[in-house]
Amino acid sequence: MADERTPIRDLFAQELRVVNLGLSSFAETLRAHGTPVVDLEWRPPAGGDAELAELLDRLTIDGGWIETIERANVEAVTRLLEAEPRVIGIGIARDVIPGMTDRTILHAGPPVAWKRMCGPMRGAVIGGLLYEQLAGSPGEAEQLAASGEISFDPCHHHDAVGPMAGVVTPSMPVWIVENASAGNRAYCTLNEGLGKVLRYGAFADEVIERLKWMGDELAPTLAAAIEAHGPIDLRSLIAQALQMGDEGHNRNRAGTSLLIRELAPFLVRLDGARDSIARVLEFLNANDHFFLNLTMPAGKCALDTAANVERSSLVTVMARNGTEFGIRVSGTGDHWFTAPAPIVDGLYLPGFSADDAAPDIGDSAITETAGYGGFAMAAAPAIVQFVGGSPDQALETTRRMRRITLAESRAYQVPALGFRGTPTGIDVLKVVETGIVPAINTGIAHKEPGIGMVGAGLVTPPFECFAAAARALTERIEKTEA
Amino acid sequence: MADERTPIRDLFAQELRVVNLGLSSFAETLRAHGTPVVDLEWRPPAGGDAELAELLDRLTIDGGWIETIERANVEAVTRLLEAEPRVIGIGIARDVIPGMTDRTILHAGPPVAWKRMCGPMRGAVIGGLLYEQLAGSPGEAEQLAASGEISFDPCHHHDAVGPMAGVVTPSMPVWIVENASAGNRAYCTLNEGLGKVLRYGAFADEVIERLKWMGDELAPTLAAAIEAHGPIDLRSLIAQALQMGDEGHNRNRAGTSLLIRELAPFLVRLDGARDSIARVLEFLNANDHFFLNLTMPAGKCALDTAANVERSSLVTVMARNGTEFGIRVSGTGDHWFTAPAPIVDGLYLPGFSADDAAPDIGDSAITETAGYGGFAMAAAPAIVQFVGGSPDQALETTRRMRRITLAESRAYQVPALGFRGTPTGIDVLKVVETGIVPAINTGIAHKEPGIGMVGAGLVTPPFECFAAAARALTERIEKTEA
Repeated sequence: MADERTPIRDLFAQELRVVNLGLSSFAETLRAHGTPVVDLEWRPPAGGDAELAELLDRLTIDGGWIETIERANVEAVTRLLEAEPRVIGIGIARDVIPGMTDRTILHAGPPVAWKRMCGPMRGAVIGGLLYEQLAGSPGEAEQLAASGEISFDPCHHHDAVGPMAGVVTPSMPVWIVENASAGNRAYCTLNEGLGKVLRYGAFADEVIERLKWMGDELAPTLAAAIEAHGPIDLRSLIAQALQMGDEGHNRNRAGTSLLIRELAPFLVRLDGARDSIARVLEFLNANDHFFLNLTMPAGKCALDTAANVERSSLVTVMARNGTEFGIRVSGTGDHWFTAPAPIVDGLYLPGFSADDAAPDIGDSAITETAGYGGFAMAAAPAIVQFVGGSPDQALETTRRMRRITLAESRAYQVPALGFRGTPTGIDVLKVVETGIVPAINTGIAHKEPGIGMVGAGLVTPPFECFAAAARALTERIEKTEA
Repeated sequence: MADERTPIRDLFAQELRVVNLGLSSFAETLRAHGTPVVDLEWRPPAGGDAELAELLDRLTIDGGWIETIERANVEAVTRLLEAEPRVIGIGIARDVIPGMTDRTILHAGPPVAWKRMCGPMRGAVIGGLLYEQLAGSPGEAEQLAASGEISFDPCHHHDAVGPMAGVVTPSMPVWIVENASAGNRAYCTLNEGLGKVLRYGAFADEVIERLKWMGDELAPTLAAAIEAHGPIDLRSLIAQALQMGDEGHNRNRAGTSLLIRELAPFLVRLDGARDSIARVLEFLNANDHFFLNLTMPAGKCALDTAANVERSSLVTVMARNGTEFGIRVSGTGDHWFTAPAPIVDGLYLPGFSADDAAPDIGDSAITETAGYGGFAMAAAPAIVQFVGGSPDQALETTRRMRRITLAESRAYQVPALGFRGTPTGIDVLKVVETGIVPAINTGIAHKEPGIGMVGAGLVTPPFECFAAAARALTERIEKTEA
């Protein structure tokens, strides 16, 4: 039947898919039929912002500067694609993180003062001060935090990233990840697990006790095993995990498993007490998100090498502090473009609902910025049980992200999409032109301090951040080119 | 666009797919377009066998016995679906396998005498006799094998299964897997890894040395860890592995990883020397097929409970000895229906080609018979890099198997197919009616003894086995009902 070609056969030879313009709900009936639907999230070009549209025209037509932007983007995205992140060890934050003092507390997202911090970030700061024994009670901790004696600073200002509240205090152990292609490093705390944990704003005794155990037993044991093993190639582990149902942000069961099997023989050969080594392996086996705190600094050290490329429209950071969502773009340097943090569309743990949710929070969107996480949804159909949606939507999300990215990863491939590389390197101009915003998976923290995780879901970042960045980049190029 | 319904919209609301009748090559052009193509492998009903078609008519129309067959199939497939395979330990073959003597050698597939054995099976028998020190040289081993002093018997006649040559000798350690729902057990050797290994017919010193180490160090260490851990739920591990890119036959990287992380803490707490435990963990980490020798007995003990259900047309065994392909059907008891073993369509290791390949061999098709392996291809798109084909074909294979199976697994789900259960329980009558034969993934052994693995691929089982079984079942029912 199909050994000859005719126009009608060619039509049916295409994979037909329904394109839905406007509200996603228009397409619910089709989805009910199991029909793959592309939600174009259509917006008028440049978000309907006439002045912005005119700016883009100046770039692409009048100015003819698009070629210089494209050249800059090739340079920036090549650095991103060629990164070789490797775990080289574990250190104490105050000893290894640049600019960290005994009174520094790092947090997720763009800068935010104590009085503007959201509930879960306040909770994590309180927990961090209790962990550091700088305060004896939550009340004392709040007073100290408000006193001005603590300098709060974004992780991103110190080559670091932190999931959710992203709180890093001076004596916390942190992963040291090095980008072998450029020699730069990135840092991230060790993952505590899910539920009542510091990064979700919990600070009960059990939370502080766990953090102490992580510092006293988990970190030194893992550090010794890594030293015996030698550097661990994260690009290879992430690539394998994406072929085993992970997307590297909200699903890390495969990556965690691969890390365990790689380190187990070295752990066994350590001098430490067997019980201690067994407790470490039990903790890892019980925490499928352990690998997240490695996919994040892997993305951070890769993206840092792509930052500050004059004229490049590559997005190098997407991060949220629970109050604001902020991005950075290579060609506009260290400037943050921010907008109010959105609410997450997600699935909630029993007993919780959207009413309990804090706004979007965490540096973990570094995974999407680096080309996995939400951008690799198609590699992780089972993720929909955790963040919502359907396996078809997972495929469509990855396909849609191709429209706002500069390249496809060579290392990170998606078997279900014929082994094509994940869409990598967000172009802020493409976001503005298409009105398509990056797809981000995330966890959801309770809006009050002290409670913890309430769910997980999908985030739609505010378009304004991207519009503002595009505007600033355009004006900057016009100045320098003038 | 899609908020109203019209016939034409309904048409486009369906997922359109091309159906290809006849030669699969007809559809190559469409596949090149990335269009999903269903290869119907169409044959005339009952394989064009008029006498067989007439038999089926007698069953379904004249006799009206189809209802009694359906009742029997519900009983048989329910036992299969409700099986709860658990690893309960490791024992020595002669001590735990029923009917095993010091002069018994078990092999894969239906019965076969030494002189009719294929090269790789002869090689494995030679290696087994060297391992048992019943022979001092390959030559002596061949003489002994031919002498009649060794009783060769199928694994399947002893509640056991063996991958490839499937050779089990008396002093080999074997997994003990118990079906908690029925209390029956199945046995399988421990996986040696890939390449130059006994099950692929190799018997060089390195092969025998590895087997000795497995008996002296690997097996006792794992046995002690399992005793400390308690029974391991294989249904849960297989279900998780299918959500992590395994299909449980030729891809077992996830299952092996999950087993390692589960056992590692218990291994560490053993009294044994640390070096010994570390060597065990290194061996497991280096062998992604280790879990295969657990998915096989898991399927075997599940299917054994579905055997010997009077009138049931459920296929309970598909197995190959490299000379013949054989099946057993529940309603025809222990009778083997055999046909010449086919050649595997596969991918070859560097330096090897189809000219080097032995015919299809091994009991590992028990995985497909139990509803995973080739039947779960859609869960393992990355498998195509190992056995050939495309991710789209992997999806289509699982969909196609629904047409010859009695149920969908409750435990084993495929995320990429909307979490539908894997097609489970082959109905020999549906195979005969549709002409669709089961899809089987497999490894490929060199045709000469002593060499080993040369590739992996896909097998098309001989239709004749299924036709003969359907004929026998029909005649038996007519006799008993008459």
